Order: sequence, then structure tokens, then C-alpha cells
Amino acid sequence: MTMTTQAPAEACDLLIEAGWVVPVVPHGMVLEQHAVAVRQGEIVAVLPIREARQRFEPREVVSRPHSALIPGLVNAHTHNPMTLLRGIADDLPLMEWLQGHIWPVEGAVIGPQFVADGITLSVAEMLRGGTTCANENYFFPDAQAAVYKRLGFRARVGLPVIDFPTAWAKNDDEYFDRAIEVHDQWRDDALVSTAFVPHAPYTVSDASFERIRMLADQLDMPIHLHTHETAHEVEESLHKHGQRPLARLDRLGLVTDRLVAVHMTAVDDAEIALCAERGVVVVHCPESNLKLASGFCPVGRFEKAGVVLAIGTDGCASNNDLDMFGETRTAAQLAKAVAGDAAAFSAASALRAATLGGARAVGFEDRIGSIEAGKRADLACVDLARIETQPLHHVISQLVYAVGRHQVTDVWIDGHRKLEDGRLADLDPDALIANAREWRSRIASIRID
Amino acid sequence: MTMTTQAPAEACDLLIEAGWVVPVVPHGMVLEQHAVAVRQGEIVAVLPIREARQRFEPREVVSRPHSALIPGLVNAHTHNPMTLLRGIADDLPLMEWLQGHIWPVEGAVIGPQFVADGITLSVAEMLRGGTTCANENYFFPDAQAAVYKRLGFRARVGLPVIDFPTAWAKNDDEYFDRAIEVHDQWRDDALVSTAFVPHAPYTVSDASFERIRMLADQLDMPIHLHTHETAHEVEESLHKHGQRPLARLDRLGLVTDRLVAVHMTAVDDAEIALCAERGVVVVHCPESNLKLASGFCPVGRFEKAGVVLAIGTDGCASNNDLDMFGETRTAAQLAKAVAGDAAAFSAASALRAATLGGARAVGFEDRIGSIEAGKRADLACVDLARIETQPLHHVISQLVYAVGRHQVTDVWIDGHRKLEDGRLADLDPDALIANAREWRSRIASIRID
Repeated sequence: MTMTTQAPAEACDLLIEAGWVVPVVPHGMVLEQHAVAVRQGEIVAVLPIREARQRFEPREVVSRPHSALIPGLVNAHTHNPMTLLRGIADDLPLMEWLQGHIWPVEGAVIGPQFVADGITLSVAEMLRGGTTCANENYFFPDAQAAVYKRLGFRARVGLPVIDFPTAWAKNDDEYFDRAIEVHDQWRDDALVSTAFVPHAPYTVSDASFERIRMLADQLDMPIHLHTHETAHEVEESLHKHGQRPLARLDRLGLVTDRLVAVHMTAVDDAEIALCAERGVVVVHCPESNLKLASGFCPVGRFEKAGVVLAIGTDGCASNNDLDMFGETRTAAQLAKAVAGDAAAFSAASALRAATLGGARAVGFEDRIGSIEAGKRADLACVDLARIETQPLHHVISQLVYAVGRHQVTDVWIDGHRKLEDGRLADLDPDALIANAREWRSRIASIRID
Repeated sequence: MTMTTQAPAEACDLLIEAGWVVPVVPHGMVLEQHAVAVRQGEIVAVLPIREARQRFEPREVVSRPHSALIPGLVNAHTHNPMTLLRGIADDLPLMEWLQGHIWPVEGAVIGPQFVADGITLSVAEMLRGGTTCANENYFFPDAQAAVYKRLGFRARVGLPVIDFPTAWAKNDDEYFDRAIEVHDQWRDDALVSTAFVPHAPYTVSDASFERIRMLADQLDMPIHLHTHETAHEVEESLHKHGQRPLARLDRLGLVTDRLVAVHMTAVDDAEIALCAERGVVVVHCPESNLKLASGFCPVGRFEKAGVVLAIGTDGCASNNDLDMFGETRTAAQLAKAVAGDAAAFSAASALRAATLGGARAVGFEDRIGSIEAGKRADLACVDLARIETQPLHHVISQLVYAVGRHQVTDVWIDGHRKLEDGRLADLDPDALIANAREWRSRIASIRID
């Protein structure tokens, strides 16, 4: 007779068993028939289903044999309150769009309620599409932070700085005072943090940039900035400052690993090398760049240089959705034509940009962006047993090039179930749609055109 | 007392009442609270719901107060049997992709069963995404035509001609003999017709092109051809024939309103003008062009020149889906960056290309592509009361820039219901997925890499 010692089963809150787990780290890996164990919102193990069933005694098991479990997608650049302006003015030249439509409408509606309602609608859309974290860039960050926190959605909210008065602040001192105030309020929160979001090089002075640099260093915050969005912006900077935007930012001490540079279509090799050397994160918003005719971000060249890339949808007034699956697909396709190389920015690289790259952009790379023990459980489950993703020759290829966001069935943030079999856990779609309709009527009544 | 004369109600088979009808003709029109009356598969009236209820006594009423009713989308270039190879080899340079993966696999599986199963899966995917007609380009057009007919799906199937032997035919004479045979069999069918599909200028001889021209004139058929797909193709033609492909085709008499020219990325102004003058239809496949790094089709310049544009997904081995909503969105976005003009290829123009332009590409412009009395009832209903398309400021903008294909709820072809509240009327998804899995196993066992 032999004695076998059976270790007592380990308790955990949740065990998710999936046909495939795509952990993103290691790069390009697909784990068949694997499970993810979660305890107190933290991933404690990633292991074969058979082993998981022996090792853990979970309070809840979610079994998805035909699905891929991936890290929640990170929308690395968005203006979510503007979701209420989705498609309000399309197919227009940039300045006509801004001056004739967006700004007049925003002027009439902007405020905490617009921000809260726009973000609530956006969170519903993001959850339904597998996105679990947003890098927010808009006014009223106090209202933003409160609503993200209330909805249990992970976010980095932006503290705006811009050289002219807005509904949020009337002058430089007020922008900075309010920024510090919001930062102080959220500095210890596990879900919501803050970043500086100076609007763009052409709307922010040298003095403000220097003040941002100093405070960001002191408070350990990212600086999230639209820049090199168009060739025109670069020309204008040369004319006004005698330097291209990145060179000017470098003179002001901002080109560091705190800088999250959004758009970056008009860049030369030296600028790409500088971003690589300094650890700048580049956020690519392909659909916004296309639709506004801004230009083409050289993703393949950034990738070759070793720059960390992330992906953002930009706001719904320009894009017109918060679909990170669609955006990632566009990024992966477009990069190839721009590079003239069908091997550029592979499916695995694009998925990494949409997850781990995004985590780096929001400064949360220690806690999200991959499925690894020790990270928080921000996860999305994607049903691949649909006509649109059959046959299934390669999982990552399918996730990037064929999956539609409606194939997302389940989402967790910090271990909490936010989407369950396609249903939002905490939000009522009918109420959201009714609210959106009210905003539509209100906006229609104030329109200028 | 007054006497009113009440006309007796007119019988019809189906009345579809929609929140919005987007008829495509007139261009850019949105009809609120309108209905479409259908009798024997034909649209007999488009009119306000209130009038429709008085005028018609329908056998069936479908009421969709929160939906837009649009013409069924036309996929103007596809290789549907290759859906079974979806994502089999991605992120590879073109020749490595073709020679190392696609051709060896095709060589092992091609035949009537592969064609029939691939098309059946594709029809399910197309119907679920609002597509009601395909411009098919593959081998075994006899098998293609039979399956499209059996499934009640409108198609123009291609009669291939290529300068080397394939499983379909061993030499020129056999390609032409089989082409005539298939054409004869389907010449009087209301749903399925044929076109010549010479593969490409670099794989078809002058003699074959001349024979195609003669037969196409005689039999009144379109000529559906990949051309000017890459700058390399143009270079090679100059080297081999001393002419660019379009000039060579013109010398051979093929540049007429029968020509359906697919891809057209590498074109100059004179070629664009020639296409406009001769009534050539240009089929734009943006996602394939991006993903294979083929180049950028100058859609804005074609549009300005007055060329009829259509949109195609290309095959799933390169794209990797048959999502005409996604393809149309990409086309509308990409055209702006390529033109450097955010006003290029508006949402309404893109929707027209995906419907009426496609109808012209398949040579069915007399019967489909718009919602007008006298046309056949090929229609798709899109639910706009979803979080992802709220608020609803502009219907056509939303259809092109925000709608996902999963918002399609109902589809009719020739007046027959093919999708009902998201469920396929004649196809069993589970059986299709099981069949796709069998093909996956079979293909995995023969793979070369």
C-alpha cells in the first residue's frame, strides 16, 4: 500500500477556464485549454485547466471552451464625453469641423453633467467591446474621475492645460490649481489616477510646459499630449518657435519616459530614434488620422526602432466609435501599406499594442496589460465559435483580423464581473439610450449650422 | 352629408415599416418613418408609413421603428470559397504568402466540395452582415452557381481564364469551353449570372484577352479583372509588354463599360480619365490593399473624375472577413487621408459605392442597389437603437462610421426573408461551424509550413 499526500486545495474567488488564453506576455503565445485563477482581484495563476481543477477550490467557475481569454483592451487616447457628439459633423475639413460645429456645440453643453453622461455611455460601449481601461483627455477631470470610479472602470483621467479660458478654468493659475486639487483627491486610488493633458504644442506656452514638467516629475505623473498630428502643426511650430514640436518639447525637458505622444504622423527618423532612446510611448489613432486626413503614423518604423506603441480610438466626434477591436485591426492593416511591407506590425504586435502598450501609456504597466500572476484581473472573453471567425486556423490572427467586438461575452475589471454573457452587470442599456436621446434633442436645438 | 370615395386597398406581400429608409437614390436622402411595399419580390412603393397603411393590405408587416432600411450591400469582389482559409497565413510578404501557403493548400483541397462548403459559410456570414449579392471570382463556377442558387443568394459568378493549368481546366480551349458551358446553363436565371474573370494582366495572354472581349460582347457579359493592384504589376507590364496594364487592355479593346477593374492602386491621372470616359467600374478593396501592402487606391480622384466606384472585401485568406460594413467604413476613412482632404468620399458616397456602385459592378443596376419602385427587394434592416450608435445625430453617418454588422437584424433577397431578427432563415449555424471545423482539421493535416 502506497500513501499519497494530497495538498489541500487552494481557495480562490474565480476560475476562468478558456479554450485559449492569450497572455500577451510571452509575446505571441497562445495557451490551449488554460485557466486563470483570481483572488481578491489579482491573477494568482495561469495554468492548464486540468491542473487548475486540482489545485484550486474556486468560489465561482466560468467555463468558456470556445472562447479566447485576453487582457482587457486599453484605449490609450480618447475623449469619452464627446461620445454624445458621435457623428454630429462628418466629412468636413478640420477647421470647419472644429469651428463651425464642435466648438459651438461644446460651448453650449459642456459641464459636469455632459461629462458624466458621456462617460457613462462610453463605459457601456467600451465594456461591450472588451475595453477595460481608458486614457481620458477632456475637461472636468473631477467629474470624469468620479464617474469612472462609481462604475468600477479603470482610467487615467487628464488634467487639462491650455492657453485660453474654458469652462474648466479661466487662466493658467486656475488650470494648475485645479489640476493639483484633482490629483490630490485621487492620488491613492487603486482604479483611477491622473495625468497632465496639455492640449497640444500649438495651444500651450513654454512656461506652462515647464511647469507641467516640474510637477509631473514631482508627482510622478504621465504627460499625455497630442503632437505631430499633422504636417501643418510641424510647419507652424517651425514658423512660431523655430523648432519642430518634438525638438521644442525636448528643449523644455518633456521628451522622457513620462511623455505619451499621441498621433505622431509627421515625424522623421531622428525623431523616431529620440522617442526610442527616451522611452516615449507613441499612441496611434489610425481611424482618426485617416478620417480627419491628418496623415499616416509610421508604425512600422516606430516598431523597428523599439518604440512602445499603444492604440487609441480618439473621440467619437471624429472616429466615430470606441471600438478597440476595429481600431487594432485598422492599425495592423494600415501599418503594412504605410511601411510597404506585408510583414510589418503583425497581429501579435498589434494585440500587444492594444493591451500591454496601452498599459504603459496609462502608466499602469505594473498592474494590467497582460495575463500574468501578480497583475490585476482585467480580462475579456471572446467567443470564437461564430460563423465570422470560422474556421479557426490561428487564434491571434482571428482576434485581430476577423473578430467583431460583439463577440466579447464577458469582461472583468479588478476581478469584478462587468459584462456577463453579453449583458452589462451594472448599467441599463435602455436608460442609457433614453439619456442619449435626450442629449440628441438638446444638441439639435442648439446647433448652429 | 358628404360622400367620400375610399379606394379599395391594394394587395401586397410585404410591408416593411422603418424609422428611416435610406433609398440611396436620390443620393444622400433619408426618409423618416417610411415604408417599403413588396409584391412578388419587387418593390412597388416607397412611401410614408401613414400612407402605406391606408394604401396597402399586406400579407405580412415587419415593423422596425428604431431601424434604418437600406439596399442590401453588394460585395463587388470576393473569393468566397477561400473563406475556409480565413487567417491561414497572415503578416507575410505577398509571394511567400502565395507560394508558401495559399497555393500549396489550395492545390490539396480545391474542388467542387471546397467551393460549395466555402460559399455556404460565406453566404451565412454575408447575410448576417447585410450583404445580399456577391461578385464571385474563383474556380468551379458551376459549383458556385449551384450553391448560390440553392441558397437563394444573388451572385455574379466568374468564369476563370488563366494561362496555366488548374484543377478547373488544363488549357486555353478548355477554359473557354467550360466558360461557355456554364454561361449557357445560367444565362436565363433571375438570381445568378456569369462574368468573365481573367485572373490578371500578368497571367493572361493577349490572345485570351481578345477572345474574352469578343465573347463578352457577343454574350453581353462583364469582364471582372484584378489590375493595377501594385506598382510592381505596372512595372512588370512595362517590361514585358512595353505598356502599362490599362494601356495594354485598351489596345486589346477591353477598356469599355464592361470592364470591372479591381484594386487600381497604381494609376495616373490619364488612366483615371480613361476609366471615366469609358465607363469602367472601379472596385476598391481597401483592407486587402492595406494588409497585403499593395498600395493606396486614389478613391477621391476617381470620384472627382466621375468614375463609378464599388467596394469589395476580397477573399478571407487576405482580408480576413466578408464584412461590408467594415470595408465601407475603411474605404470612407482611408480615402480622406489618401486625398489629404477630410471632405473626400463622404459617408453618403461610400454607402452608394457599397450598394448602387456594387450593383453596377455586377451588371445588375437595373434590378438592385437602391430602394426604388420597380427594383427587386434586396434589403437590409439595421438596428440603430444600440449603445454603439447613440446618440443618433445623422443616420447615414452612423451607418458608415459607427454601425457594426451585428446590428443587421433582417435581410431580404428578391423579397424572400433570409435573416429574421438576427436568425438565418435557411441555414443552421451549428452545422456550418461543425463543417468549418472539419475543414480546419483537414487543412491542418496537409499544411506545408
